[in-house]
Amino acid sequence: MAAAQPVSFDDVREAAARLDGIAHRTPVLTSRTLNALVGAEVFIKCENFQRIGAFKFRGAYNAAAQLPAEQLAKGITAYSSGNHAQATALAARELGTTAVILMPEDAPRNKMDATAGYGAEIVTYDRYTQDRTVLGEALAVERGLALIPPYDHPHVIAGQGTAALELFAETGELDALVVPVGGGGLIAGSAITATALHPGIKIIGVEPEAGDDTKRSLAGGERVTIPVPHTIADGQALPTPGEITFPINQRLVNAIALVSDDDIIDAMRFAFEHLKIVLEPSGATALAALMARRLEHLPRRIGIIASGGNISAQRFAELINRGEHDGAAATG
Amino acid sequence: MAAAQPVSFDDVREAAARLDGIAHRTPVLTSRTLNALVGAEVFIKCENFQRIGAFKFRGAYNAAAQLPAEQLAKGITAYSSGNHAQATALAARELGTTAVILMPEDAPRNKMDATAGYGAEIVTYDRYTQDRTVLGEALAVERGLALIPPYDHPHVIAGQGTAALELFAETGELDALVVPVGGGGLIAGSAITATALHPGIKIIGVEPEAGDDTKRSLAGGERVTIPVPHTIADGQALPTPGEITFPINQRLVNAIALVSDDDIIDAMRFAFEHLKIVLEPSGATALAALMARRLEHLPRRIGIIASGGNISAQRFAELINRGEHDGAAATG
Repeated sequence: MAAAQPVSFDDVREAAARLDGIAHRTPVLTSRTLNALVGAEVFIKCENFQRIGAFKFRGAYNAAAQLPAEQLAKGITAYSSGNHAQATALAARELGTTAVILMPEDAPRNKMDATAGYGAEIVTYDRYTQDRTVLGEALAVERGLALIPPYDHPHVIAGQGTAALELFAETGELDALVVPVGGGGLIAGSAITATALHPGIKIIGVEPEAGDDTKRSLAGGERVTIPVPHTIADGQALPTPGEITFPINQRLVNAIALVSDDDIIDAMRFAFEHLKIVLEPSGATALAALMARRLEHLPRRIGIIASGGNISAQRFAELINRGEHDGAAATG
Repeated sequence: MAAAQPVSFDDVREAAARLDGIAHRTPVLTSRTLNALVGAEVFIKCENFQRIGAFKFRGAYNAAAQLPAEQLAKGITAYSSGNHAQATALAARELGTTAVILMPEDAPRNKMDATAGYGAEIVTYDRYTQDRTVLGEALAVERGLALIPPYDHPHVIAGQGTAALELFAETGELDALVVPVGGGGLIAGSAITATALHPGIKIIGVEPEAGDDTKRSLAGGERVTIPVPHTIADGQALPTPGEITFPINQRLVNAIALVSDDDIIDAMRFAFEHLKIVLEPSGATALAALMARRLEHLPRRIGIIASGGNISAQRFAELINRGEHDGAAATG
């Protein structure tokens, strides 16, 4: 007998009710130019407009909101140098409690400032000599804090599934849903939602070429671990799929497409120039997969999740210049 | 007796009916971060998401749509190297006619491509040796084309006024409306709408410091001409207010704020990093006026028009790097 499914579509619907009026209902954009370019009808769910600038707030809030009141009052914690740090900090503030976020001492200043700006206490560590898992667990025990994991938790996965729920409410049935894959929380939640609503839909994940751990794991039938990937898509620079997310994705994901850093920069430039929106590298991978024709069979009506937009203007300028120089070199 | 007003609020409402389902109803964004920063409640009407990437489509379409059928069938024309070129080209396509756009032969490739992409014929001229007005009029006469002016026409002004109409439908009454000023068409249309709906509202225009022709003209009580301004806000690099727009603005505009190129770059960076949207320099001037505290009295509830987002990623990267270098120098 199969094990009970750890996350159901009902969990996603309950998460949506919990997030109602707290998370933004982000817009779905379409672009005639994009449709003509890829030869399909594309619907872009813009989670770059979500609170904290990425979908991560959905899962962190949904998990924190379900903690027992006594536990919640003691505070929550997370270790992250990325969007999950801000998501947990904001979830704590919204729920009237405190957050302690463990960040590497050399994390980008603007990410530290943003996290502190939501009222969180930041504890730094040296990522070359200290193990954040050990530190994080010690911190949680010492202060009685509840750890909010970035993806590997049923409540986080259910929260992430609410973005797709909103997307389908606007688009109706789609032939495929294309979703970035890091730890696998967003695609697991999206796949649960999508297949519950539209059983025939294809679920396609997108990983950076250098970080194809989920593709390899799906091909091999078990979680494999690769060296920590070097990619501009920092939200997807993970070495192995999640313990809870992987079996869900094994069951529901049809294929994984891979994109190069150059594909991602091209998609970020297109989003900037044609959609007038800002996407961070990880947030642009689903768009990149479509634009660079990394999907084997192109369906007619496609939903994609643009998962986040947290990138400094300075870093964007660097990536664009890099793309331009590469382009110049290629044609020279 | 005063002369009959050339543009009425009814004209704006009729323009809105004409544009319904053709122009985008663009979103109104708010930002807790921005509100905290400026100490007011700010509503941003995002015309960077308008078709062709700027408000100009509203006016061009409203003017072209009112041409007699026989004239419309012969085609329309415009001279512009900027957003009005694309606006006129798209208006022609939407109305099933042709457009001939006169552009300087050294206009940016991407603007020419975008204009041609809407199906327009492009005629180039040498802007150092040829007069575009003479050429444009000759072209119009020769081919029987109707000229669509970029701002100085009642139908263009009425079309531009529809953006504010949509804004107020979402926000209700506001204390002030802050609008970029180039030739004065957008602010004239916005002011007609705003003062008809909310007679007590303050209308504040924003010009680049180097291009303060409207501020000087309002102060002097007549249209003055300044040397063609050097500013990154290319949509506002005009030497004199319009003949038709000026008397409207003289009657309805309360003040003009001036912003520097650095103010504009700061606002573009803020829009990128915090709102996750792309604004071209002219499109960011109203936001810049708020952020750089260029308004004498800060009202409580403020609407601003973010008028356009047509800038290449490469040009944005250049401006951001310029801003960064200036910043580094200032603190060094």
